[in-house]
Amino acid sequence: MNRHWWLDACQAPDPAATEQALARQQQLTKPTGSLGQLEQLAVRLAGLQGCERPSLERVAIALFAGDHGVVEEGISAYPQAVTGQMLRNFVNGGAAISVLARQLQATLEVVDLGTVDASLELPGVRHLRLGAGTANFLRGPALSEAQLHAALEAGKHSALRAQADGAQLFIGGEMGIGNTTAAAALACALLGCPATELSGPGTGLDDAGVAHKARVIERALALHGLSAQEPLRALACVGGFEIAALTGAYLACAQAGIAVLVDGFICSVAALLAVRLNPECRAWLLYAHQGAEPGHQRVLAALEAEPLLALGLRLGEGSGAALAVPLLRLACALHGQMATFAEAAVADRPV
Amino acid sequence: MNRHWWLDACQAPDPAATEQALARQQQLTKPTGSLGQLEQLAVRLAGLQGCERPSLERVAIALFAGDHGVVEEGISAYPQAVTGQMLRNFVNGGAAISVLARQLQATLEVVDLGTVDASLELPGVRHLRLGAGTANFLRGPALSEAQLHAALEAGKHSALRAQADGAQLFIGGEMGIGNTTAAAALACALLGCPATELSGPGTGLDDAGVAHKARVIERALALHGLSAQEPLRALACVGGFEIAALTGAYLACAQAGIAVLVDGFICSVAALLAVRLNPECRAWLLYAHQGAEPGHQRVLAALEAEPLLALGLRLGEGSGAALAVPLLRLACALHGQMATFAEAAVADRPV
Repeated sequence: MNRHWWLDACQAPDPAATEQALARQQQLTKPTGSLGQLEQLAVRLAGLQGCERPSLERVAIALFAGDHGVVEEGISAYPQAVTGQMLRNFVNGGAAISVLARQLQATLEVVDLGTVDASLELPGVRHLRLGAGTANFLRGPALSEAQLHAALEAGKHSALRAQADGAQLFIGGEMGIGNTTAAAALACALLGCPATELSGPGTGLDDAGVAHKARVIERALALHGLSAQEPLRALACVGGFEIAALTGAYLACAQAGIAVLVDGFICSVAALLAVRLNPECRAWLLYAHQGAEPGHQRVLAALEAEPLLALGLRLGEGSGAALAVPLLRLACALHGQMATFAEAAVADRPV
Repeated sequence: MNRHWWLDACQAPDPAATEQALARQQQLTKPTGSLGQLEQLAVRLAGLQGCERPSLERVAIALFAGDHGVVEEGISAYPQAVTGQMLRNFVNGGAAISVLARQLQATLEVVDLGTVDASLELPGVRHLRLGAGTANFLRGPALSEAQLHAALEAGKHSALRAQADGAQLFIGGEMGIGNTTAAAALACALLGCPATELSGPGTGLDDAGVAHKARVIERALALHGLSAQEPLRALACVGGFEIAALTGAYLACAQAGIAVLVDGFICSVAALLAVRLNPECRAWLLYAHQGAEPGHQRVLAALEAEPLLALGLRLGEGSGAALAVPLLRLACALHGQMATFAEAAVADRPV
């Protein structure tokens, strides 16, 4: 038998560490609950790291890029050549995620899964060349079965490299002109939503462009006859190389025991796919932000996510997750370094 | 004539730097607007610092503490001795704001304006001893005119020390058992709201406690006959030493040309007072977060604030503002370090 790797068991959070961290939180010199979401975050990270006082010094960012055949339907504000051009910008240090990785002292690896320029060769980029972009999903499945498996595997390999580097947090980013269309189509299939509810401006479509994008998605959903019960088939039919890689990376992180910080709309759709494929991975997924893309809120709600930020971000690249890293680090520092009522000789609230 | 210092002119943001920063934002390799609030933030800081690419290396935190006579009405979940105990915790490094200041490499000064323990003498704390806490404002004005002026002046001196240290950002924090009651009373006076709308649990009152707190505030408002037209009198009648110090600090920062990051409910009420006393200061006030205290949203709306975080925080001490500092710093790094479309040879969106 040929059981898929992503169905293998995920790590389980450590209940003893969770208990210890919860008890510690209640002894710190502040009113209980007064640090809001940061308290739960510290406790959750304690469970994931299996220690009372977690830390997040080593952060790994993996950026997955791929092109989308559906761009020929005119669903993006930017030309497709931008995907490849941005790959150069990522490794040259000029992109948003490059700046953020530097500031956070995080590692940044750039994985080109397949762009329209099949001969692209950039120092510092891992070129996997699964195809010159996906196929136009109005004409057939976006990914072949071989491409789907290779893209999921590529994500797994990134997670394993992060593990080998001792990463305590994994961030997946994405770049691919047209990928909000693929992500919205996937979300429609997984959530049973009409395309009009999950289609948004992406990098900057106007109202007419958004309406056109929704019609393209509706046609794809009708063509492929997708349902929520077949996430893997949905991923092959209307997904993308980078979305599959993110899904594979999230699943492999959960199996390796690395906490994941999920970025925006596209990454959240990949997280939803991961949870549908192997629900055990849910415990390892933290959500960085509620972005500007209208479908994001629906996907986050389906994931029961409590995102940390809501700054109107819609860049992708993993940038929203990177922006939330200092909050996670400060949550750990507060949890680990604050004095207890006993240590500081401060009167606790009368019971 | 004896014109009050806080009526003196505030610095004006630099329109040329604002223009340059705005132009730069539009050339960076990302879809326009895709970094959401962080774009406006970088542009605004450029105007405040008078340079195209602002930075926030030097952050000054001043923590103002004071006790409140109204605590004898039973409006707080914690005993009043905690104010003094926490002063020790602040300088010993065990409080939330101490941990955050360390992580951010910010300076932290602790100013005791007057606590119930009038003989308190702690190394590292500036003891100003304006009184053994304010008077119970159900029996008369909380602050005498001399105390009011001294507290405003104390805030100004903190701002001037921050300026002397070359601070690029000023954060005021507060500590004082009972101070959400004083802040809510002030907000009621300034916004013309009934006390039930602005009274909240503070450090942890139950429903009955919140209802009692609202009745105490209603009695104070009736006793003093406060109105929105007399912010200074409201501050004296129902305010607090630390609230007046924050107000003075914000006004002095605006006069000195230092950007301010306003923390939670109590700090936002101080900001509202500052804006009512001298509306020019508004340009210098940035808002860190929307906290858990129910009155906070009303006060932020009155200030037309767009807070960066909403994490359910209700600790005070300046902690919410400190938690937002990395976002400001990353906004500056992105603005200053990202490549332009021309530099990176990336195709911009077709016009």
